[in-house]
Amino acid sequence: MSDTLNLTLALLKKQSLTPNDAGCMDLMAEYLQERGFKIEWMNFGETRNMWARKGSEAPLFCFAGHTDVVPTGPLEEWSTPPFEPTIKDGLVYARGAADMKGSLAAMMTACDRFITEHSTHNGSISFLITSDEEGPAHDGTVKVIDTLNQRKEKIDFCIVGEPSSHKRFGDMVRVGRRGSINGYLTLFGKQGHVAYPELVDNPIHALAPILSTITAEKWDEGNEYFPPTSFQISNINAGTGVENVVPGQLNLVFNLRFSSELTPEDIKRRITYIVDQNSDNYELSWQVSGLPFLTEKGTLTNAVEQAIYELTGSTPVLSTGGGTSDGRFIAPSGAQLIELGPINETIHKVNECVRIDDLDTLSLTYSKILENILL
Amino acid sequence: MSDTLNLTLALLKKQSLTPNDAGCMDLMAEYLQERGFKIEWMNFGETRNMWARKGSEAPLFCFAGHTDVVPTGPLEEWSTPPFEPTIKDGLVYARGAADMKGSLAAMMTACDRFITEHSTHNGSISFLITSDEEGPAHDGTVKVIDTLNQRKEKIDFCIVGEPSSHKRFGDMVRVGRRGSINGYLTLFGKQGHVAYPELVDNPIHALAPILSTITAEKWDEGNEYFPPTSFQISNINAGTGVENVVPGQLNLVFNLRFSSELTPEDIKRRITYIVDQNSDNYELSWQVSGLPFLTEKGTLTNAVEQAIYELTGSTPVLSTGGGTSDGRFIAPSGAQLIELGPINETIHKVNECVRIDDLDTLSLTYSKILENILL
Repeated sequence: MSDTLNLTLALLKKQSLTPNDAGCMDLMAEYLQERGFKIEWMNFGETRNMWARKGSEAPLFCFAGHTDVVPTGPLEEWSTPPFEPTIKDGLVYARGAADMKGSLAAMMTACDRFITEHSTHNGSISFLITSDEEGPAHDGTVKVIDTLNQRKEKIDFCIVGEPSSHKRFGDMVRVGRRGSINGYLTLFGKQGHVAYPELVDNPIHALAPILSTITAEKWDEGNEYFPPTSFQISNINAGTGVENVVPGQLNLVFNLRFSSELTPEDIKRRITYIVDQNSDNYELSWQVSGLPFLTEKGTLTNAVEQAIYELTGSTPVLSTGGGTSDGRFIAPSGAQLIELGPINETIHKVNECVRIDDLDTLSLTYSKILENILL
Repeated sequence: MSDTLNLTLALLKKQSLTPNDAGCMDLMAEYLQERGFKIEWMNFGETRNMWARKGSEAPLFCFAGHTDVVPTGPLEEWSTPPFEPTIKDGLVYARGAADMKGSLAAMMTACDRFITEHSTHNGSISFLITSDEEGPAHDGTVKVIDTLNQRKEKIDFCIVGEPSSHKRFGDMVRVGRRGSINGYLTLFGKQGHVAYPELVDNPIHALAPILSTITAEKWDEGNEYFPPTSFQISNINAGTGVENVVPGQLNLVFNLRFSSELTPEDIKRRITYIVDQNSDNYELSWQVSGLPFLTEKGTLTNAVEQAIYELTGSTPVLSTGGGTSDGRFIAPSGAQLIELGPINETIHKVNECVRIDDLDTLSLTYSKILENILL
């Protein structure tokens, strides 16, 4: 049994539901301290954050990750207990196996391998680990980055251990993410009895032209790095629950994942225009949960592509798809950042699993990337 | 203080929330028995129904009404306690004052006046009173009519005491009602994360063309008696409550108030067609809560118009507007039926009230109608 697998199993036994770290970082800290890392705790609220650094020279290479996992979902649908990691047919089953305790273990052994094999190297290595990535993410990576920025400690290269692979290990890495913006629209009408249509102003009917226009809108064409901006309504609610009353208001929640072709201001302006054309009694508010970011082709992507090619014989697709990750907090500081981890097919689902072979390959890939950057 | 007002106050003191009669009918039964009516109780489930008849000859004239009232709504918004009838500025304030305990009292005194003044008259007089008109209406008037039909006891003329007046007493009577049909549409899609638009099938977006078409549809032009058929969506719901998940289904509830130009089958066919054009994964179910009915101009409307003209100096508008009433259960048996009662402005609201003068005029109008029909 490899060290990577051993460490993975040890981490998977800890029930680290956001924001509870459940001792995962203590295990990591002990391992890293033995290898010369200096540990700093940067806890905020209920969130535990660890900043571990070895060396003081530039460039600073950072492994970023999280110890928290999403809830198990229905326990009865799991074939094995989610916090008792179970090996079967070359796979480890447990909550967090792919997202992302396997990656944490692979980072640790990759570091050990690199340090052991290369007693002298350029730059420094660090770990930025949080217990609040799957939750609100208010007290996690974003706060650590704030702290580092304040003391002018700058990350030059960053690998986030998010499970980026699609069908087989290393077939995809994330080099950026689309922006994400939520919109909250309330249309006001006039409540009344369905039998008196002349006395009501039905906000559901008023939505019709808005819904048609907004769902048909082409937001942009995307670009070399980003797919076209997408629009999805996630929630719509109106009605008192009874059949004979026309409601007085309608609530709509929508989200756009947007490319670097658009700013939040572009989006707000265009949607406000569509609503304005069709309603004079509404409220519209916004929440920007992430701006688009991108690591263009360069030192880090070359190092990663070369490492993956050496280990797997193929080169990865450089993608900006997928959901948000803590990369959005690190990239704006100017770091070159990519996300590389195991296959993401089972994440956030019951019977989450990871291939044991992939964990070992991941560890070798991570240490190869360290070589490509720091030697 | 008139007998009509006295009886109204006595009825208003009883807290007869659907289906609880709270003794209203006992009061009515005693009054009617003293005047030669034979009382039959036709109770079903928790609903109390009274069938009181005087005479056995045709034609049979029937007063129809209900003793139950709707809930008070927020007590703190009432200026006076809703079950302690309060007289102020010529008005009686209480829950049920206008809908329809005032009408019940007016019917009783009208009957007394008519019988006293005309010891011999044609035909028979009856009262059909239920305690479940404001509720599900499953065990009320509809069951009494079933019973009467079974024994071939046929109502020829019927006045329902619903508050039909709009701005002043007698300005409007109802001579029919539109039909009412509810539709329940569920559109199915595919749930998923907003960040992966290619993996979801958003039922809210799929609604757009349906909503546009269905809200723009002209159902009919109405006719001499009925306004055009109206369509209102009363409830729309989709979404998991979180911002980043596209829901797997959308639920829509709608209602049509339809004229005698359309059948429920016409409506089902046309709406099914619209949905079919835009979705291949949906469920659509229906509930017909009333067919349109109409009393065309004739003996009863003439009698009513003449009586109102004599008492008020104006003739009423003959209307088929407004919500459903128990008239829908009585009219199909072949009775000529109209609804005539006080001003409906405050019904179902806090501070419900009725004008005392209108109660006395209503009683005189009812007895005048009896004269016009049965002498």
